[in-house]
Amino acid sequence: MKSFAEIQVLKFPESQLQKDVLAVEEPLEIRLGFYAQSKFTHKAISITMRTPDHDFELAAGFLFTEGILQNSSQIFEIKHCGKIGEGFTNTVRVDLQKDVKFDFKRLERHFYTSSSCGVCGKSSIEALQTGVKRIESNLQIKSDLIHQLPDILRESQTVFNETGGLHASALFDENGNLDIVREDVGRHNALDKVIGAKFLANQTPLSDKILLVSGRASFELVQKALMAQIPILAAVGSPSSLAVELAKEFGMTLIGFVRDNRFNIYSGEESVI
Amino acid sequence: MKSFAEIQVLKFPESQLQKDVLAVEEPLEIRLGFYAQSKFTHKAISITMRTPDHDFELAAGFLFTEGILQNSSQIFEIKHCGKIGEGFTNTVRVDLQKDVKFDFKRLERHFYTSSSCGVCGKSSIEALQTGVKRIESNLQIKSDLIHQLPDILRESQTVFNETGGLHASALFDENGNLDIVREDVGRHNALDKVIGAKFLANQTPLSDKILLVSGRASFELVQKALMAQIPILAAVGSPSSLAVELAKEFGMTLIGFVRDNRFNIYSGEESVI
Repeated sequence: MKSFAEIQVLKFPESQLQKDVLAVEEPLEIRLGFYAQSKFTHKAISITMRTPDHDFELAAGFLFTEGILQNSSQIFEIKHCGKIGEGFTNTVRVDLQKDVKFDFKRLERHFYTSSSCGVCGKSSIEALQTGVKRIESNLQIKSDLIHQLPDILRESQTVFNETGGLHASALFDENGNLDIVREDVGRHNALDKVIGAKFLANQTPLSDKILLVSGRASFELVQKALMAQIPILAAVGSPSSLAVELAKEFGMTLIGFVRDNRFNIYSGEESVI
Repeated sequence: MKSFAEIQVLKFPESQLQKDVLAVEEPLEIRLGFYAQSKFTHKAISITMRTPDHDFELAAGFLFTEGILQNSSQIFEIKHCGKIGEGFTNTVRVDLQKDVKFDFKRLERHFYTSSSCGVCGKSSIEALQTGVKRIESNLQIKSDLIHQLPDILRESQTVFNETGGLHASALFDENGNLDIVREDVGRHNALDKVIGAKFLANQTPLSDKILLVSGRASFELVQKALMAQIPILAAVGSPSSLAVELAKEFGMTLIGFVRDNRFNIYSGEESVI
C-alpha cells in the first residue's frame, strides 16, 4: 500500500482541476500473539489511523514505548494476518516467544483507568514512574546545529514536502548526521516508527541521539521518547505544559519553536553549548 | 484551571531567560453515569489529553460525536466528581436520565474491535454507515468568503495567538459571521467542544454552518463533523486520503489548504459559488 494517493483537486483562485497528492490515512490494527495458560492466543490491542509503510516498525515501536516489550528478542515473529485481499496489510500481528511474560494491566492502561474519579497531570506523570527511567546521558548539542536540524530533515523528506500532510520524526547524532526519518499522519505513529526501527535493530536505548519532531511536543511524545531514553527532544512547534513538566521530571532536554533561526529551551539547558 | 501557563524559558539566539506562555495539557476522564439492571452505575469511558476549559461541552460533544447520545434531553446532569483538590476538575461525569438506553458496543468500538484480522479504510467508512446520515443541506459559500475565514478566526483567538500551541475549531454562518470558536491541544477535542456547546444548546444538527479547523483534516474530524451534519468543512491544512473518501461518501464539502489566498476543493464543489 502506498503512503500517498494521487487525486484530482479543484484549485482556487485558478478554478482549475489539477492533479495533486494526499497523505494516505488508513487504520492499522495491532494484535499481540502470546501464550496464556499453555495456550497460544492473540488479541487486538490497538487500532491507530496511520500512513501505510513501516508498519512492523510501528507495531514494535508501539509495544516498546507503551512498556509492553523491553527487548526485541521477546518477539518470535511479526506478520500480517487475515485473508489476502483489501486491508490485508492493515493488520499486524506481533507474536511473542513462548516464555515471555507481560503485564496485562499495562495493556488496559490506555483504554480504561481504575482510578475512582481522580486524575491529573501529576498522576499521569506518577503513573509513568514504574516504567520510565531518568535520562542518563551526557550528550550535548551545539546551538548552531539546532538551527540546522529542520532543514536537514526537510531535505530528506518526500511525502511531507509534496503534501504538507504528514508529521515527521527524525533521529540525529551529535554532529547533525541524520540517522533515520519516518513520516505519518499521526505524530505518535511517526515517533513509534522511528523508535520501533531502532528497537528491532537492537539499538535501544537511544542515549546518544537527538530527536526532532516536525510539529508540537505533547506529553505523549515526551513519554515515548523517554521510554527510548532519548536525551534531547527538539520540536519545530510548541511544547505543552505537561510535556515540559514531564521532561523536567526525568531529566530530558526539551527544545521548542526550532524555526526561523530561533529556538526556546524549556528544560535541561545544560545540554546546549 | 487555566488553559495556559506562564513559564520561564531560555530564548535563543538572545540566550536570555524570558517569560512565556504554554498551552496547558492535562488529562480529562469522561465518565458516563447510567442505570443498568435497575441500579445506577458509572464508568470511565475515555481519557483524553486536553486543554482545560469548556470541559462539560467537551464531554457532551464526545458522547454525541461518538454516537452514544443523540439528544441533550438524555442528560440528567453533568458535573465534576471525586475529591475536592488537585485534579478535581479533570473528571467530568455525564449522568443520563433513568430511561436512556444506549449501545454499549459503541462504547467499546474505540478500544477493541471484534474483527478477526481484517480492517481497512473501506471498513472504517462502512462501520459508520449505521450511525451517520448523508448530509442534507443546500448551504453554499462564496469563494471570497473562504479566503477570509482564517483571518476572522485568528482575530478571535487568544491562547492560540500567544502560544502557537493550540488547535482551533470554529463555526461560521454563510455570511462569514463567527458563531463559536474553541481551542485545544487536541484537534478532536477542539471540535468536540464546538459541537458539544451546540448540542447542549439544542442547536444540532448544524446544517447551516461552515466549520473551519486550524490544522489538517483527518478521518476523525470529518466523522465528527458528519455526526453533527455540518455540510462544509474547511481546513487550513491538508486533508488525508480517508478524510476525502469519507466526505465524498456522505456528501460533505471538504476544502483544504485555506491559506495565502488559495484553497483546494476535495469534495462537493457545488457548494462553492
